[in-house]
This record gives sequence, C-alpha cells and structure tokens, in this order.
Amino acid sequence: MNTRIEHDLLGNLAVPADAWYGIQTQRALDNFAITGVPISHFPAFIRALAMVKKAAALANRDLEVLAPHKAEAIVAACDDIIAGALHDQFVVDLIQGGAGTSTNMNANEVIANLALEKLGHAKGEYQYLHPNDDVNKSQSTNDAYPTAVCLAVQFCAEPLEQAIIRLKGSLEAKGREFADIVKMGRTQLQDAVPMTLGQEFEAFAVNLGEDVDRLHEASRLLCEVNLGGTAIGTGINAPARYQALAVKYLAEISAKPIVSASNLVEATSDMGAFVLFSGILKRFAVKLGKMCNDLRLLSSGPRTGLGEILLPPRQPGSSIMPGKVNPVIPEAVNQTAYQVIASDLAVTLAAEAGQLQLNAMEPLIVYNLLNSMKMLEAACSMLDERCIQGIRANAEQCARHVDNSIGIITALVPRIGYANATRIAAEALHSGSTVRELVLGEGLLEELELDRLLSPRAMLAPAGVVS
Amino acid sequence: MNTRIEHDLLGNLAVPADAWYGIQTQRALDNFAITGVPISHFPAFIRALAMVKKAAALANRDLEVLAPHKAEAIVAACDDIIAGALHDQFVVDLIQGGAGTSTNMNANEVIANLALEKLGHAKGEYQYLHPNDDVNKSQSTNDAYPTAVCLAVQFCAEPLEQAIIRLKGSLEAKGREFADIVKMGRTQLQDAVPMTLGQEFEAFAVNLGEDVDRLHEASRLLCEVNLGGTAIGTGINAPARYQALAVKYLAEISAKPIVSASNLVEATSDMGAFVLFSGILKRFAVKLGKMCNDLRLLSSGPRTGLGEILLPPRQPGSSIMPGKVNPVIPEAVNQTAYQVIASDLAVTLAAEAGQLQLNAMEPLIVYNLLNSMKMLEAACSMLDERCIQGIRANAEQCARHVDNSIGIITALVPRIGYANATRIAAEALHSGSTVRELVLGEGLLEELELDRLLSPRAMLAPAGVVS
Amino acid sequence: MNTRIEHDLLGNLAVPADAWYGIQTQRALDNFAITGVPISHFPAFIRALAMVKKAAALANRDLEVLAPHKAEAIVAACDDIIAGALHDQFVVDLIQGGAGTSTNMNANEVIANLALEKLGHAKGEYQYLHPNDDVNKSQSTNDAYPTAVCLAVQFCAEPLEQAIIRLKGSLEAKGREFADIVKMGRTQLQDAVPMTLGQEFEAFAVNLGEDVDRLHEASRLLCEVNLGGTAIGTGINAPARYQALAVKYLAEISAKPIVSASNLVEATSDMGAFVLFSGILKRFAVKLGKMCNDLRLLSSGPRTGLGEILLPPRQPGSSIMPGKVNPVIPEAVNQTAYQVIASDLAVTLAAEAGQLQLNAMEPLIVYNLLNSMKMLEAACSMLDERCIQGIRANAEQCARHVDNSIGIITALVPRIGYANATRIAAEALHSGSTVRELVLGEGLLEELELDRLLSPRAMLAPAGVVS
Amino acid sequence: MNTRIEHDLLGNLAVPADAWYGIQTQRALDNFAITGVPISHFPAFIRALAMVKKAAALANRDLEVLAPHKAEAIVAACDDIIAGALHDQFVVDLIQGGAGTSTNMNANEVIANLALEKLGHAKGEYQYLHPNDDVNKSQSTNDAYPTAVCLAVQFCAEPLEQAIIRLKGSLEAKGREFADIVKMGRTQLQDAVPMTLGQEFEAFAVNLGEDVDRLHEASRLLCEVNLGGTAIGTGINAPARYQALAVKYLAEISAKPIVSASNLVEATSDMGAFVLFSGILKRFAVKLGKMCNDLRLLSSGPRTGLGEILLPPRQPGSSIMPGKVNPVIPEAVNQTAYQVIASDLAVTLAAEAGQLQLNAMEPLIVYNLLNSMKMLEAACSMLDERCIQGIRANAEQCARHVDNSIGIITALVPRIGYANATRIAAEALHSGSTVRELVLGEGLLEELELDRLLSPRAMLAPAGVVS
Repeated sequence: MNTRIEHDLLGNLAVPADAWYGIQTQRALDNFAITGVPISHFPAFIRALAMVKKAAALANRDLEVLAPHKAEAIVAACDDIIAGALHDQFVVDLIQGGAGTSTNMNANEVIANLALEKLGHAKGEYQYLHPNDDVNKSQSTNDAYPTAVCLAVQFCAEPLEQAIIRLKGSLEAKGREFADIVKMGRTQLQDAVPMTLGQEFEAFAVNLGEDVDRLHEASRLLCEVNLGGTAIGTGINAPARYQALAVKYLAEISAKPIVSASNLVEATSDMGAFVLFSGILKRFAVKLGKMCNDLRLLSSGPRTGLGEILLPPRQPGSSIMPGKVNPVIPEAVNQTAYQVIASDLAVTLAAEAGQLQLNAMEPLIVYNLLNSMKMLEAACSMLDERCIQGIRANAEQCARHVDNSIGIITALVPRIGYANATRIAAEALHSGSTVRELVLGEGLLEELELDRLLSPRAMLAPAGVVS
Repeated sequence: MNTRIEHDLLGNLAVPADAWYGIQTQRALDNFAITGVPISHFPAFIRALAMVKKAAALANRDLEVLAPHKAEAIVAACDDIIAGALHDQFVVDLIQGGAGTSTNMNANEVIANLALEKLGHAKGEYQYLHPNDDVNKSQSTNDAYPTAVCLAVQFCAEPLEQAIIRLKGSLEAKGREFADIVKMGRTQLQDAVPMTLGQEFEAFAVNLGEDVDRLHEASRLLCEVNLGGTAIGTGINAPARYQALAVKYLAEISAKPIVSASNLVEATSDMGAFVLFSGILKRFAVKLGKMCNDLRLLSSGPRTGLGEILLPPRQPGSSIMPGKVNPVIPEAVNQTAYQVIASDLAVTLAAEAGQLQLNAMEPLIVYNLLNSMKMLEAACSMLDERCIQGIRANAEQCARHVDNSIGIITALVPRIGYANATRIAAEALHSGSTVRELVLGEGLLEELELDRLLSPRAMLAPAGVVS
Repeated sequence: MNTRIEHDLLGNLAVPADAWYGIQTQRALDNFAITGVPISHFPAFIRALAMVKKAAALANRDLEVLAPHKAEAIVAACDDIIAGALHDQFVVDLIQGGAGTSTNMNANEVIANLALEKLGHAKGEYQYLHPNDDVNKSQSTNDAYPTAVCLAVQFCAEPLEQAIIRLKGSLEAKGREFADIVKMGRTQLQDAVPMTLGQEFEAFAVNLGEDVDRLHEASRLLCEVNLGGTAIGTGINAPARYQALAVKYLAEISAKPIVSASNLVEATSDMGAFVLFSGILKRFAVKLGKMCNDLRLLSSGPRTGLGEILLPPRQPGSSIMPGKVNPVIPEAVNQTAYQVIASDLAVTLAAEAGQLQLNAMEPLIVYNLLNSMKMLEAACSMLDERCIQGIRANAEQCARHVDNSIGIITALVPRIGYANATRIAAEALHSGSTVRELVLGEGLLEELELDRLLSPRAMLAPAGVVS
Repeated sequence: MNTRIEHDLLGNLAVPADAWYGIQTQRALDNFAITGVPISHFPAFIRALAMVKKAAALANRDLEVLAPHKAEAIVAACDDIIAGALHDQFVVDLIQGGAGTSTNMNANEVIANLALEKLGHAKGEYQYLHPNDDVNKSQSTNDAYPTAVCLAVQFCAEPLEQAIIRLKGSLEAKGREFADIVKMGRTQLQDAVPMTLGQEFEAFAVNLGEDVDRLHEASRLLCEVNLGGTAIGTGINAPARYQALAVKYLAEISAKPIVSASNLVEATSDMGAFVLFSGILKRFAVKLGKMCNDLRLLSSGPRTGLGEILLPPRQPGSSIMPGKVNPVIPEAVNQTAYQVIASDLAVTLAAEAGQLQLNAMEPLIVYNLLNSMKMLEAACSMLDERCIQGIRANAEQCARHVDNSIGIITALVPRIGYANATRIAAEALHSGSTVRELVLGEGLLEELELDRLLSPRAMLAPAGVVS
C-alpha cells in the first residue's frame, strides 16, 4: 500500500497515500475498533460537521484571522461534503475516547486535504492549509463537536418525524375505515364496555402523533449551541466577535434557528438537552411498543385468541405447524422499542459521567441518539407499510364479542340499578346465558327499550346524549 | 377489636368499627402489603383525590343526578380532607393491583363515611349516601384516579421547584463570592485552561436552574385530564354535560389550568405524560449527580487530591483515621440521584405494560414519581443547607495550580505560535519547570508582555477583547 | 426534651438523654433524611451488625487488645441486640453519605451504651467503654460494614427462598390438579399445538424453583468477607492474627461458612458480589413477571378473552361495571417485579461509582438489595396464598379451544403430508370449519385413525411414542 | 438481476438466481431492515446453527426418518459451513419478528441448497431435498434456534475470556513492577492510609479475573438445551428417541457438555439463562468501568491532578491546547461498559416479554448478548495493548503524596493515642506542616521510632506483624 508520512504531537505515522483523512484519523483507526460503526453510517452527522467548519471559516475570514483564499477553499470543500462528497472518508468508530476529538480531526483533515486540492496542492501539504491551524481555527473539539451533534440530531429527527406522520396517517385511515365496527373495550384484559374498532385505531394515531410535537420542542433546546466557547466555554483564543458571527453563519447555513447558549461554560459540559431528547425517543418507543403489544393481542388466534383484527401475513410462521402465521412485524417493532429504551439508559449513564468542564462520554451519546432515530424511523416505516395499511377487521368476531359480553350491562345500570345489574351479571357468568336473555326473561325491561339501550349509539356516548 | 360488617360484590367482611374507610379498603389492606408505604405518605395525593371527588359532586349536583343534600355533604367532607383531615385513613399500599381501584375506593369510602356523619348517620349506613353510587357518581376509577394523579404530581412538583430555586440561589451566591478566584479548568481530568471558581459555580446554578422550566413545561401536559371519560374514555353512564362541568370545577378547585384531553379514549390508557415527566426528573438527577461528582473531585484531598474547595464538615469521617472528614452530603445526593434514575426505569416499564384500553400498572408510576420528587426535594434542601452554603475556596491552591500549570501556554499561542508552544509544553512536562520560566529563559517574550498575556483578564476572555 | 452532651471530632452536640445511640448517630439523623426508611426497617441487618461486633470483640479479647470485662460487656450487648433488643435505636436513614460510617457508628454507639449499662455506668460515659476505641477496635467502617451487609443479604434471602419454595409447591399442586386438562399451546399469541394445563403450571414451578439454587450460588460469594482489612484492606492497626480470628468467630456466630476474601484490598472496594446477587433477584423478577403476564392472559375474559383459567376474586373490579373482577394479585406482582428490575439498575449505578479504594455508594446497594428481597418475599406469599392456590380451570373452554383449533393439524402431518395439511389449514381458516370436519369430508383419514391421532395421548407425546 | 421463483405458504417470490438462501430468507430481507447487522456479523452463530442442523440430520438418519443420502448431503453442507463456507449468505437482520424463524429458515435454505449441489441438483430443486421437510426435520424454530443460541453464546464467550485473561496478566505484571512504590490509598476521594501502587494493580487483576469463573458458571446453564421439544416442548412430530440422539450428537459435534433440559416445556419459553449470562457481562462491564475511572483519576494532571501514573499517549489531545494528551483508551472502555450495561436492560426487557409457550423477543436477546461480548473483547484487548502495558509510575509524586499526607498519622495511633493523633491531624491541616514535623516538634516520639512506624514495612502490614 502506498503511504505518505504525516506528523503530529506524538510523532510520525504513515497514512494511505490516497486517503483524504490524515494522521490523527489514522491513529484513531488504529486505536478504536469497538462497534465497527463509522461516522459515515450517519451522513447527517457528516453534513453537520461540514456546516460547522464552513461557518467557522466564514467567521474567521470576516475577522481577518484566516486568509481569504484559505477560507474560500475550506468553504468550497465543506460545500462538497455537505453535498455528499467523500463521506467514505469519515472512518472513525463512533465509540471513541477523546470527547470527539477524533471525529473533529477526521473532519478537519478531510476538509483540509480537499481544500488543498482546490488550491492546487497535494494531500498532506499542510504548510499551505492546516487541519488544526486553519480548518479548526478559533475552535476546539469541545465547541465544534457538540455544536455539530446538536445539528445532526435535528437533521436525523426530520425523517423520523416524517415516518411518524405517515404512520399516524395510516392509523387515522384505519380509524375511519373501522368507525362502524362495534367491539368490546377491555380494561386489565377483562371485558369492559363497548367502543368501536375505529376509536381504538384513532387513539393509536393521536397517541403517536403527539410525539412529533414533543420532538420539535426538544429540538428547540438543541438550537442553543456553545460554538465560540472553544476549550471550556471561556472562548480562549477565539477573536472577540467570533462567537456571534460563527453562530449567525451557522444558522444561515443550516437553516435552523441556531443561537448561542446563554452560559458557554455551562453549555460546554452539559448533556441535558441530549438526555431530554433521548427521553422523548424513549417515550415514543414506549408508546410504539404498547401499540404493537395491542396489535398482537387483538390479532391473537386465529381460533383461541381475541381475533378481532387480521394482520397481513408477512412470513410463513412455522416450519412445523401448517398454516401458522405470526405477527412478525409488530414483534420486530417491539424489539426495536426495547433497544431504544436501552439506548436511553446508555445516554443517561454517559451524561452522568461528565467531569468538571467537559463530558468525555459524548461520543456514546451521539452513537445512541443517532442509532435510535435510525432504527425508529425504519421501524415506523416497516410497521406502516408492511402491517398497518394491510390490517383488516374481523367484524363478525367483534359483534359476537359484544353480543356475548356481560360488560354491556353497564349501559343498563341507569335503568335497572346497580344491584339488579350485579345480580344479572353474576347469573350470566354462572349460567352462560347472555345479558339480553336474562333481562328479558326477568321482565326487567321491554325489548324495545333494551334494544335502544344496547344500541351502539347509546352505548358509545355519554348517557345524556341519547334522549 | 370492635367491627362493623360491610358488603360488596364479593360478600361480607368485617371492618374496624371506628374506621372511616370501608370494605373495599379493608380487602385491599388484606391483599396488598408490598411496600409498606400507604397513600398517606403523600398528602398531596390525598388532596388531589378529594378535589376530584368534590368537582364530580358539584357537576353531578348541577346536572341533578345527585341530590343537593348529598352533594353538600360530600363537598364538605372533601373540604375537610383537603384541609388535612383524616389523612391517616388513606391506608392502602401504593403498589396495588386494580389500576388504582383500591385507592379510588379508599377515597370514596372515607368521603362517604365523613359525609354520612355530617348528615347525622353512622359509619357504614350507605343506604343514605353510598361510596359508589354517590361519591363515585359519573366516574370510574379509570378517569378519577389518573386525573387525581395528574394533580398530585403537579402539587408535589411545587416544593421540589422551590428547593431547586433555593439551591440555585446558593450556587449563584457562591459564584459571586468566588468570582475573582482564578483556577485551572479541566477537560477529561487533564489540565486545560484557566477559568474562575466563580464561573464554575455559576455554571452549576444555570445548569440546575433550567430544570425548573422543564418541570413547568412537563406539568402543562399533566393539565390535560380524562375526567368524564369514565370506564374507557367513551363516557358511558356519565351525563352528557358532565365532562365539561367537572373539568371546569376541578380547574377552579385546584387552581390549575386543567382542561379535557382532546381524545378521551387515548387519554385513558396513555401514560406518556408521566413518562415525559419522569424523564425530566431523571435529567435533573443526572445533573445533580454530575455536580456532586464535581464537588467531591474539587474537594478531594486534603493533601493528595485537587483540594480547590473545602466542604463544611458534617460527620467524623473515620473511626480509624484521625481527622478524616468525608464529603458525606454530596455522596448522599449522588445516591439519591441513582435512585431517581432507577425509578425512571420503573416508570418506563410500567408505561410499556399498558394493555388495550387501560394501564393497570399506573399505581407503580404514581409510587415512583411521588417518591422521586420527595427524595429530590429532600436532597436539594440537604445539599443547599448542609453543603453548598458552607463551601469555602482554597484560593492558594487554585493559584498554585494556575502558576504551575502547563495549560496556560494556550494563551501564548497567538503570540509564540503553536509549534513553539508545543515544544515549551513538552519541555515543561519533562523538566518540571514552569511555562513562565521557560518562555522567559528562551527570550520568547518580554516579562511585561508575558505578564499581560497570563493575566486573568487576558486568559479569561476571548482573545480579541484584550487589546 | 432532656439531653446529654457528647463530643466528637467536630465538637459537642446534644443527644436525647434516653437515647441509646450517641453523637455521630445524632449528626446522621440531622444530616440525612432522604428515604425515611431507617436501618430498623431490616432487623436482619441489625443482627448482622451485632454479630460482626461480637466477633471482633472476641478476637480483640483473645489477642489481649481489649480488656476482658469490656469484651464481656460488648458481647452481652451484642447478644441482646441479636435477640431483638433496642432495634428501634437503629435510626439512621438507609441512604446516607460516608460509605456506611453512620450505620457502623449507630451500631457502635448503641452497643457501647448497652455495654456501659451492663458495667454499671450511665449512657455516654465513654471513658469506661468507647464506641470507637473499644466496640470498633481493630475495625474500620470499611471492613465491618460490608461484612455485615454480606451477612444481612444472606439472612434476608432465607425467607425469600422459603416463599419461593412454597409458591413452587402450590404451582406443582396445580400442575397435578390440571394434569388431564388438554388445551392449546400458543406461541407468539398464535394457536400452536396441544398441551395440558398441568404442563403449563408445572413449567411455572420448574422455572421459578431454579432460582432458589441461583440464590444459593450467589450467596456463596457473599461468604467471602474483608473483615480484618480495616481502612483499605491492608489491615492497618489491626493485630496480626486478628483477621483470621475474627472471621472464625463470625462463622461460628452466624452459622454461615464465612471465610476471608483472598485479596482484602480488592475485596474492600469491590461490589461485584452484590451486582451478581442483584442480577439474580432481577432474573427472578423477570420470571415472576412473565408468569403473571401469562396468568392475566389465560384468565382474560370472562367472555371475550382466552378464559382458560379463573383466578379467585379478591377485589370488586369496578365501581361502574357491575360484576367485573380484575386480576389484581398478578397485577401487584407485576409491579413489584418492575420495581425490583429498577432496583437492580440502582445497584448497578452505585457499583460503577466506586472510586479507588472504596465504594462510597454501598448504602444505596444495601437499601435496594434488602428492599427488593422484602418486596419479592411479600409478593411471592401474596401470589401463592391469594391467587395460585385458588385458581380453577375452565375445562370446557380449554376443550372447546382444542376442538376448534387449526393447530391440531400439526399432529396429522406425518400421515397426510405437509402440503395437504397446509391446504386444509387454509380451508379451515377461510370457511370456519373444523379440521376434523374437513379431513373426514375429504376422506383423507378414517374416523378411527383420526380419533387416535387427535387423542391427547398422541398429540402430547413425541410421535414415536404412540405406536 | 437473474432470479429464480420459489414458493411457500404465502405464495411465489423471486430470489436472486445465485443466492444460496431461499424464499423465506428473501421475505425476511424485504421485511426486516432495522439494525443493518446481519447474522453473518457473528460467524460463531452461523457455526452453531450448522452444528444443530448436523446433529438433527444424524439423529434423523439413525431413526430412519431421513434417507441416508439426504442426511449425508446435509451433514457435508453443515461441515462446509462450520468450516467457514457461505457465511455471506446469512443475510437476515438480527432484529426480526418470528422468534428466530427467519434465522432458522436462512440456515435451512442455505444448507438445503448446498446439499442439493452436492447431490447434483440445482438451487431451488427442493423436490430432492427440502429446507423444511428435510433440513428442519424433527425440529421447530422453537427448539433449533434457542439451542443454536446457547452454543453461539458459549463460542463467543471464549475469545472474551481469553482477552480478560490477557488483560489480567498485564495487570498482574504491573502489580509486580510497582510492588515497591508506596503511595496514599484514598477512600471517598479523601486521603486515607498508605499502600503500594502494586497492590492497586494487583487488586484490579484479581477483580477482573474472577469474572472468567463467573462466565464459566453461567455457561454451564447454557448447556441445557430444549432440542427435541419441537414447537412448544411437547416434542410433537419428533420421533420418540430423537431428542436423546440429537442432543448426544450435538455434544459430540460442539465439544460442549450439552444435555437435555429437564423440562422441555419450561425450557422452550424460558430466557433465564440468558438473563443470568447478560448479568455477568454487565457485572464485568461495571468492574471494567470502575477500573478505567480509577486509571483516569490516577493519571489526572499532569500538574493539577493526582498524577501518580502516566498512561501511554495515543492521540494528540487537543487542537487548541498544546501538549495536551487525554486518557482516550480508558474513555473508550468506559463508553463500551455503558453500552453493555444498557444492553443488559434490552435483554431484561425482551426476557420479560415472553408470552405463554414462547418468547418472541429472543432475537433481540441474541443481538445484545453477541454484540456485548464482541465489544467487550475488543475493549479488553484495546485496553491491554494500548494502555495497561504502557503505564508508567510517577514514583516521585507517589512518595511526595505519602510524605505530605496527614493520613499516615493513623499508623501512630497505637503509640500516641487517638486524641493526640486527632489534634496533630487538625494542626497539620491548619498550619500546612507535615505530621513528621509536628510529632517531632512536640516530642511525642523519638525520630528513630517515628521512622520505624512510618516505614512502608510497618504501615503496609497489620500492626502486630512488625515487632
């Protein structure tokens, strides 16, 4: 393999001659091989890094601490990367020591070498444009990296939100499709009172849809960045007006309402916004899991379960049991939800481990947040397209359950009284008779009134509505 | 023991003659003895239950489904309980089966018996006023209980918020007190660049203070209640206008901006608002833990640690090592933080376990939320009064660290260049000399300029500020 | 209130005149008020502390570093406490800073004052017998406290194990009672192949029963103690032969096979044995939770669920729905299981937070381990006595499910082939017919052979057994 | 792309013509795309699957339910795969619905097609040898898959154990290398009493080394497999003697002491052995994390921290602070530990979600267990080779800390008494003098005796040893 020799604080090291990254990235490749998941697994993160570097270069140019031709070359390199170039050169493992230094340097080095090419120089000729002195100018990993993470999380949230919105739409459509199918509601897995299958799906839609708002609210906190704080938030070695300028440029480039955090020392070590964001992802995972548990319950059977809905078959369910089909899509979503809940714990542990002016565990937070969003987005799309859209109601079973249930007697309480109702309920349970048979048999109500009281219209609305 | 016999769906049972609670509470006492922590451990929860019952009684009275004299007696009983009466009669264990039915019935029964007394009847004479038919009228546990929980969580958040605000105030005061003490900042436990001890405490204050806002935001979601939804959110057996009336009364009684949830079916089973709230408590615990870790690091020593601050001594530290004093207050806070983080997991697990139209595990959520807030409030007050307010700076040690550090060379980079700085840093580390000695020795800078560059004023502000 | 004045490193403090504890306990009462759960909540822990103190006194006496009359008085005091005396004097909150120093001093002080009385002196006359110099002789909190914890955990495991064994016995009895009730097994909530209800309960019994062995194995690690290591495991200030003697005495007193850890420095800071033990409790909680989930599924209904078993009714299930009865006991167990799983996280967090030669968070570990065992013991007993023993089978429903199922066709595959079986299964699902009807209708098998193949004897055993 | 058409229960589907997998794998590829991590990420899992299939084929052959030529071809195919062939054909995402059916069918299909080739047939000509009817004969996913998982976990544990043993060896070597370097021990981050740096590293070695034994013990439970239980543990459709034979063959092929679980119904749904195993991995992660926290503390500085050891530099530490080097390797290990702790939660959640006769979430358990072991193995090797082996002691700093410490006064207590010692300690803290100066100044001890008492030999051993 052809190599070139580069130099840093720790000495010389050979780098592949055609690598756009440099010596510090090479060291990180040699040092860290934990997950096998490189930065390039998350293109949005690479774009975010390039946007931060571009904003810094523009601010440095304006403040005349970076020569215009260098700034121009850096900006052009960043634009290429934002547009998708050289993503395969972001090779460092997401779990890394150094609080993100290796990720930051991977970006600095790739941008430097791409800018060098634009200036007509060869890779590694850093005397003309340097990863640290020029690309990283007025920055520290400790402000550039967290700022990029704040952006990357927001970028990754967008497709997730879109996936949730599509899923919500499909649930709403099922809510409308099933609006007239009356079924028994259940509390604590015990027969309760009637509702429609449409209400059940509509509730799913409302429930999941709310979290789009929650993600938006949590994203707002991620717009407060510590760019300009440099090493520990005091802004050492950055020009006085750099912070305001860099943040202004970043807001323009990213099209996000980026602002400076009110206290940069605090912002440099605080992981609170990520903990909150992760908590929202966990909340959504909990809801998604609960819904998939319900879908599996409602489709249980086909003969010895609830059997009120039918999921579209996606995999033969058994090599040994002919005709068996399992709810594989909700099962995969449930597992995804558990993984996301677990990831929230990793984020929590990493956040608590911050020490003094920095949190060295931030790379783990990034890894888990971006991974969780990617998995949730895939799970939502899978669930929507391969399950929800194909769900059919078993209307006969739903009706049979209502007719056969004891819970409908609740609707008679205002007319026959709680004591009578309790007695009839016990008798029905004991004898196997239906409520209708017993009430008519005892002459407690006329058939006409009974029909009215047990009509969906009456049972599904607050008592006073039906008059 | 004198007893009276009461009757319910499952038959007769003896209840202590002087008990204000009734048969269903007695059954719950017999059935559930898991934590030993009764409802009465959280007076705010009892008040919240009584407020819901009062609001329901007023709405039922207005809608003429509850006789005025009964409503009046119920309201008077609730007012007594809100004012603190009979709290010792709320005896059910907080971990209970039945999705809160036992807690709801404990409230219904105590209120009924107190109302009976006001009407001149004896305990248990439910023919005159019934726990179910009257106190619980137009309600189900499934709407009354979660609504009370939403209130109780908000009530318990208030003293916690006050404790955070007081703690924040003390941290700010220390920030001002230590504003002129220059010290070394540290990233990844390695010497970084200078800052003031005041900045460090100010950052703590800002960091914790933010969570008061987060608690407020999360409380907003708890103002959307499902009261009026009865069993599963369809409002069965409640009068048509009951929901709106009851919610209006509850807002007045509680002085909280309570509104109806937009979809009562969804709201009846959803635990999302509690998951989010718990996530905020966890976030605060993480921050509190991180700060206490820092306090223990900064006060480590007295001779072989960082020793930059002195915590007030609170317990003799060792029976074997004379003179040892340990950071016992932060240690207790750290443990509280871990317990709260763990409680968030319990909330998460319980939330995910909801099934179909209800979440039967809600009592566990209540137990953990209320417990976490109580513990956090105690921890914040303890930390404030017994530690933060008494912290003293070791100014000599802080100054010695700065003078002796290599990290201050960062401030010289703009003048002597990165290459010279790196070489001097290596030389200092190798030889044990100070940066000042080496820079002057090599004649890189005049003493006057060196003094200026290494002055706190220069090192603590972005480069351009000092000119 | 009458008080006496005591003195320690931090100065003077008033202690209630009749308190058996002393100044350091009083300080801890003033400092720590987080959980409200004092040491006395766990009598086994108090006994363990007294046993350690007794063993130390005997070893110190033998080595002639403690006067015989003092040793005798300390031993007598410890014996009283082991027998149950003065437990209400162990007042310190279980969550405390100081790595257990306050708990250790609470024990030292109560024992000293009780010993003083036996010697004819008044409380607080420590010149005759001192909590530190005499009761704590040759010890540090850092060895005495963890050693007592190791014992306490083992003591608390015993009633839990007994409760598990009783629960297992009841499940086995149900296994025998239901041995002839054939039902459908279910995988992924979809109808699978037949089994007996007895097999289902027998599997529960086997599953839970295994964890008694696991608890025993994990207890073995808790028999390796660091007593004699004093402050950091080097044994400073303890006589040379003290360690061996004290451990020998402790084994005798506790009737547990206590031995010295092989490396006392390691043993002093390591929490690994507690993490493992907590992991076993978590495992048991997971199993208990899974079984209770199953019980709730199997008893779902009464009309629109699986309805294969009937749980004994324990609480009226609804104030609004007449006749409703909920599975309240399993629900309470599920919540207990979640709490134990969460406690395991608290133990994990505390264990990871150890620093250098000690783990200051050990009190949190103790709190969670002892609490989890107490709650699990209560949950097992409740589940056994209030649920399992009263479960009845719904044999008709079980039989109906089998007859009506499609899954039984699996048993015909060896005779009619997978292709035919799959076609019949699809036809049955489509038409609503039974497998029996379709197979006979198509003439695929004679009725006699069909009966034989679908007999429980054939379906419940590996194919070759029936010949 | 060339394709061939295959058929299953759900209809026809095109499969790439050159794919060794078949239609059900293709469906799984289309359905599941959550993690992007295919089975082939874990070659040990593929080997385990092939071993199970080989054992089944041999048993089926012996029992004459599989034709000898088919058995021979299947065995040959399995042998190839065990040797490493076609691993890239194991393409299904590890997170999948269906309780492992897709993984099992991926194996069945690849083996069938490879066996077909050996018999001279083309891919997909299943009339000659069928993935279900022949490769999967006498099996269900529900026994074959968990059995393979039990093996895979054991296989993956081996390189992890080797990595731990190597790491332990390096720690022991450092223990010997640093055996004579006396330093201050610290409890609760406060100066305690002296020890050697060698003891500190020796304790690390002992601490981590124990977990090799724990992994072995936990592996023992994984040797009890449910092979032969088929769908739900009743052994339906397997020949009577199949279970014993298949297990015997599997023990031979795998060279592991595989035995049948005592209750196959229980074993089919139970995840307890995996929960326990995961708990051991978590325990090891906790220990690893604690040690890395210590390494970062001990190497903190270089000037304002503890500075007792020097870690080998691995990455330039800062782009802004010249000469800074961070403890990047321990930091990466800490993050790995957090990820493993989080994975244990995912395993726990999945285990609790089992329902009735099966646990549909087992694929998530597999994903997390195998991933955790792979990451821990990488972390241990990285830590060993890139950090521990290169650690150097800062002997001067260690000695300075001891001489300057107050904690050494503990060693004088037996001679000067606790009261004198406490007074001197306070005076030292107040005045900045050393203990030595004050004791000599007050004439409490002769210099000769003082030297003897403060010699390492005296301070590092129980008091009585030195006479």
